[in-house]
Amino acid sequence: MTETTTPRPPLSPTPRSTVGRLNERGVLDRAALDDVLDAGVICHLGIVVDGAPLVLPTAYGRDGDTLYIHGSTAARTLTAGASGAPACITVTHLDGIVYARSAFRHSMNYRSAVVHGTLTRIDDPDQRLHALRILCEHTAPGVWANVRPPSRKELAATMVMAMDLTEASVKMRAGDPVDEPDEIAQGGVWAGVLPVHSGFGTPKPSDDLEPMPVPAYVLDRGPKVSPSMSAS
Amino acid sequence: MTETTTPRPPLSPTPRSTVGRLNERGVLDRAALDDVLDAGVICHLGIVVDGAPLVLPTAYGRDGDTLYIHGSTAARTLTAGASGAPACITVTHLDGIVYARSAFRHSMNYRSAVVHGTLTRIDDPDQRLHALRILCEHTAPGVWANVRPPSRKELAATMVMAMDLTEASVKMRAGDPVDEPDEIAQGGVWAGVLPVHSGFGTPKPSDDLEPMPVPAYVLDRGPKVSPSMSAS
Repeated sequence: MTETTTPRPPLSPTPRSTVGRLNERGVLDRAALDDVLDAGVICHLGIVVDGAPLVLPTAYGRDGDTLYIHGSTAARTLTAGASGAPACITVTHLDGIVYARSAFRHSMNYRSAVVHGTLTRIDDPDQRLHALRILCEHTAPGVWANVRPPSRKELAATMVMAMDLTEASVKMRAGDPVDEPDEIAQGGVWAGVLPVHSGFGTPKPSDDLEPMPVPAYVLDRGPKVSPSMSAS
Repeated sequence: MTETTTPRPPLSPTPRSTVGRLNERGVLDRAALDDVLDAGVICHLGIVVDGAPLVLPTAYGRDGDTLYIHGSTAARTLTAGASGAPACITVTHLDGIVYARSAFRHSMNYRSAVVHGTLTRIDDPDQRLHALRILCEHTAPGVWANVRPPSRKELAATMVMAMDLTEASVKMRAGDPVDEPDEIAQGGVWAGVLPVHSGFGTPKPSDDLEPMPVPAYVLDRGPKVSPSMSAS
């Protein structure tokens, strides 16, 4: 991720970005927002189409206070969003299943970021190329310098959108179940956390690839999870 | 998952559930929808609040042709959805990062299901208990029979919503990058797939748990990925 060097204030919740339920899970540290976003590979983009919500998974990238997404100029999601309509981008990491003594107290450990805003289409060619580099490097770090960059025709077929990170909320849960004291004392029911892990497997060369070693930027790619945030 | 035994017709796309872009990735087999939904743990629920989309991660469960979600009666998401407003529920599995010879051809392997509909609040106590069992067993199979069921007070504090699976789309990508023939022939750039795996780790007993073995329903829980659908 390209990172701005300007110190940034904590998240200032607006009414809709205020964590409404279980607000002890809300996190106002701006760095937490960046951590959750940077640890993800895909986001879920929500827009309103004909009065109904549409939620689609898509790639994204972050550059300082801006999120970028992209898609084909033919994609209805981005076409609808292009008009400056409101959008919501959510990134979620599931860290564990929380087993409790009662059904009601079962839960999940997770980290999520919800960003509210408006999609802005990037028309300037230089800005668009910059955004595509950010997107590409988020999805596949190290790739941009090693593959052919987009042609004019490819650039023309790609719509790039930006969304500000000014209105966002971060929510997390970690740790043990929270059970009723009398049920803890009573005992007899297993309680704890089953961690959920994700990571990368062994690279599989394309069938049409000539024999060559797997480059370090693919082979040595660690899990996209910042160590301080991983499931405890 | 509880499964109905009635054979079901293939998915019949409506205009909004028709896969618009890259429609060779669309799948009309009804079983594929069930597979994608059953392999997931969380969904992303989209609703419209004050004209803007809101996308939140939440647990879900499937019973035949019905998806259930739940939450606190105090949660604004479900309160807004309770009015019969349109909703969208999306479940996504990321299976791999697709490295290509050009930036433009980079992609991801994934399976996703997008369900359009209207949330219906479940008021009948028996139906609500049934839905909570489905939800609980989806998130933590085997738990329902082994923990205390919800009390009347807990049931009253829980809102349960149902959504029909009649309007849904499934989209998948698998396999190698699709590069330009001249760039394949030219060679020199690594191309292939870096698989993305997820699974469960070692169960961690709660700090307040007396010594006891981890039950089989926690310990032997396999990855929630149907073998036929896993990354190749």
